[in-house]
Amino acid sequence: MPKVTREHRTARRDQIVSAAQRCVNERGFHKTTMADVIRESGLSAGAVYSYFKSKEEIVSAIADQALSTIAESFEGILATEQPLTPLAALRATLEHVVRIAEQPGGDITRVAPQAWAEAMHNESSLSIAQDKYGLLRGHFLAVTRRAQADGTVDPDIDPEYIAQVLFGLVPGFVLQRLILGDVTPESFTTGLAALLK
Amino acid sequence: MPKVTREHRTARRDQIVSAAQRCVNERGFHKTTMADVIRESGLSAGAVYSYFKSKEEIVSAIADQALSTIAESFEGILATEQPLTPLAALRATLEHVVRIAEQPGGDITRVAPQAWAEAMHNESSLSIAQDKYGLLRGHFLAVTRRAQADGTVDPDIDPEYIAQVLFGLVPGFVLQRLILGDVTPESFTTGLAALLK
Repeated sequence: MPKVTREHRTARRDQIVSAAQRCVNERGFHKTTMADVIRESGLSAGAVYSYFKSKEEIVSAIADQALSTIAESFEGILATEQPLTPLAALRATLEHVVRIAEQPGGDITRVAPQAWAEAMHNESSLSIAQDKYGLLRGHFLAVTRRAQADGTVDPDIDPEYIAQVLFGLVPGFVLQRLILGDVTPESFTTGLAALLK
Repeated sequence: MPKVTREHRTARRDQIVSAAQRCVNERGFHKTTMADVIRESGLSAGAVYSYFKSKEEIVSAIADQALSTIAESFEGILATEQPLTPLAALRATLEHVVRIAEQPGGDITRVAPQAWAEAMHNESSLSIAQDKYGLLRGHFLAVTRRAQADGTVDPDIDPEYIAQVLFGLVPGFVLQRLILGDVTPESFTTGLAALLK
């Protein structure tokens, strides 16, 4: 038996996550079964279960994949040497969201509303969503603190409140993009800039 | 047989909608069946089906119930004689959302993520969600036009873009309230006001 390398394991895991994403996008989280994911992945049941015990774990992995690229995007945002504005940070984030949504393999952002829905009546999904939300909002908290230090945002306001608003704009953008289909990072940040004037 | 009055029909319809809301909040949209709704409502299957043909129709009615009170709330917001600001309109809307969420009978806002999820892979749910979203954003468009006329918002920016942002803050607030539980109309509008300075 050949030795299974770490690269091989990662590639297989990605193969399962991509298969699950296609299933969820096509028929929804609830109608997707582990058997569907196994079939779509082209791997054996034993192989798939050795990576993921349940659909919830796979959806969590889909979210992690998107979130890790978002974390990198925030590193880039925070690396700027100019005074950082919340508007620039939001715009870069929305552009990143659209970029990953338009990758081949299906729009990953369509999984998000299904994860939110599941969190409404499933304790373990709620706890997963709380972790991801906490992480994402943490990035906006870092942006806010930096903007307060740079003097582009009032330093006397609790940065958590400002992070709530900046982070809150992301699902608001994602949902309008998925449901009404007419928002773009350009239109959204133009609208926000008009309010900030 | 007694004549069925319009009041009687409305009361029965409300009874079914409330029963459905309890079911969806408890076990989720997907696990809720028409049989569950019938049992929970205490009415006969024939009676329930004479009002609603499917779960999708009932969820649409739950949303309509919430949206009609929101429409009234916007009438109040637009009736002010002072110059209208987007911040005041958003705050009034979020306070209204929390008020209806805290009504007895279960948090109606928990149905929203399930409607969004369903819209991701069900054409008729998508079309319902588009209608409701269009309506809601229309209220913020009216607010924006009024604010532009009042001089509190730059009149040279496309009001649709500004409405996208204001409306986008609502699901962003609702989701953080449901998932992280730490946002309030006060914290959220304080954060937004800090950005607007």
